[in-house]
Amino acid sequence: MTDGHPTEMSNGGAGRVILVGAGPGDPGLMTVAGRAAVEGADVILTDRLVSDGVLQWARADTRIVPVGKEPYGAATPQEEINRLLIEHALAGSTVVRLKGGDPYLFGRGREEVDACMAAGVAVEVIPGVPSATSVPELVGIPVTHRGTTQGFTVISGHLPPSHPGSTLDYDSLAKSGTTIVVLMGVRTLPQIAEALLAAGMAPETPAAVIVDGATPRQRLISATLASVAKASADADVRPPAIAVIGEVAALGLAP
Amino acid sequence: MTDGHPTEMSNGGAGRVILVGAGPGDPGLMTVAGRAAVEGADVILTDRLVSDGVLQWARADTRIVPVGKEPYGAATPQEEINRLLIEHALAGSTVVRLKGGDPYLFGRGREEVDACMAAGVAVEVIPGVPSATSVPELVGIPVTHRGTTQGFTVISGHLPPSHPGSTLDYDSLAKSGTTIVVLMGVRTLPQIAEALLAAGMAPETPAAVIVDGATPRQRLISATLASVAKASADADVRPPAIAVIGEVAALGLAP
Repeated sequence: MTDGHPTEMSNGGAGRVILVGAGPGDPGLMTVAGRAAVEGADVILTDRLVSDGVLQWARADTRIVPVGKEPYGAATPQEEINRLLIEHALAGSTVVRLKGGDPYLFGRGREEVDACMAAGVAVEVIPGVPSATSVPELVGIPVTHRGTTQGFTVISGHLPPSHPGSTLDYDSLAKSGTTIVVLMGVRTLPQIAEALLAAGMAPETPAAVIVDGATPRQRLISATLASVAKASADADVRPPAIAVIGEVAALGLAP
Repeated sequence: MTDGHPTEMSNGGAGRVILVGAGPGDPGLMTVAGRAAVEGADVILTDRLVSDGVLQWARADTRIVPVGKEPYGAATPQEEINRLLIEHALAGSTVVRLKGGDPYLFGRGREEVDACMAAGVAVEVIPGVPSATSVPELVGIPVTHRGTTQGFTVISGHLPPSHPGSTLDYDSLAKSGTTIVVLMGVRTLPQIAEALLAAGMAPETPAAVIVDGATPRQRLISATLASVAKASADADVRPPAIAVIGEVAALGLAP
């Protein structure tokens, strides 16, 4: 990468940290710069959703450290990830932090950048192809479509609509006129659909769930806002899955 | 690409069309699969915002056809682009359609896929790194940030809020609790800011404009919702530029 990396800091040949977005799963959807970073890494800290195909670009002597968390399960604490990044960089290693999708979309990437900067460690970010846009795209669904919608909204379903920690206003989301893409919402999809219906979104609004997107196991479930929670449960959907709600969800092409 | 391409259709060795997202500008942010497609192309139809660095991966004998449009200026009509894609593919060529960012985000990509399918031409889509997420990221701005916002909304500013063709509800956008990213909004930014203020969004809400993102000319203008239109005008901002409105806009790191 030669352009547009203002968060890069020179540190005279010492170690450094590179946050890399690994894309949605298919190794072909990693960036050229991201691949080069993996090839040059001494140490790789990797999330659970990053595919083996990406890790195979690493050198044989590269140390691979899995730090990902299972959905609703145990995780390496963020403070421990930060500590590992800094420790390896201060020891002189080129450390690549691989994250599924894009490091700055629900990836706590900026927190890791801040930790490195506070420790005086050079840090750079290489954006990735987000799952939120590419997974629908791979089944033919455009999150925007001329004449249909002039915007899209990506939300985390990690917290249900009624949760006091939710920053989202579902009444407004329902009326915004944008396509709604829900990440990490397998468990909360019934409550999210209910909140959107209660806010007046039409029950017949098309909805789709894509399971294991950008992998050979990719599946598309087409439904409506009223039926999507049951359709998803009937299909035994498990993470990772992405839901799309809006007129464009009817444009899915997969079998 | 071996995985997750349900829109790909076999056609027995005849020509085909591959829509490729070229990313935000820096060639390093092209995907591995996109680069391979460019290297294998017989014909490339390219948008204005695609960098020369990407086109340099093409073979010397590859025919490059610019079809991009200038902002607010002349464009190759969409029907003519569709016609060229189909004509070259039916003549047996591997045709790569290069689009800035991602083909399915405000790129009319699905329209081109539909035209190819209607003509019986095999067509495949390779997602790209969207400008909407990566351009803010390259100046340190995460469109989501834990504890600050659990979602983001990307809108086109092509039509002003008052335009009868706008599908967007700015009252709802202002209240949604998501970061707002505005593409193609250099001309309409004053009206968009005014609409959000009128809907009750706080005047002191951080706002940022990134000009020529992901290029060596990249510039960050930091302001507030109340001041961003004037700050943008004072800085003589011209397309391409992306505006970010929301608490995360204060996290910009660039000088």
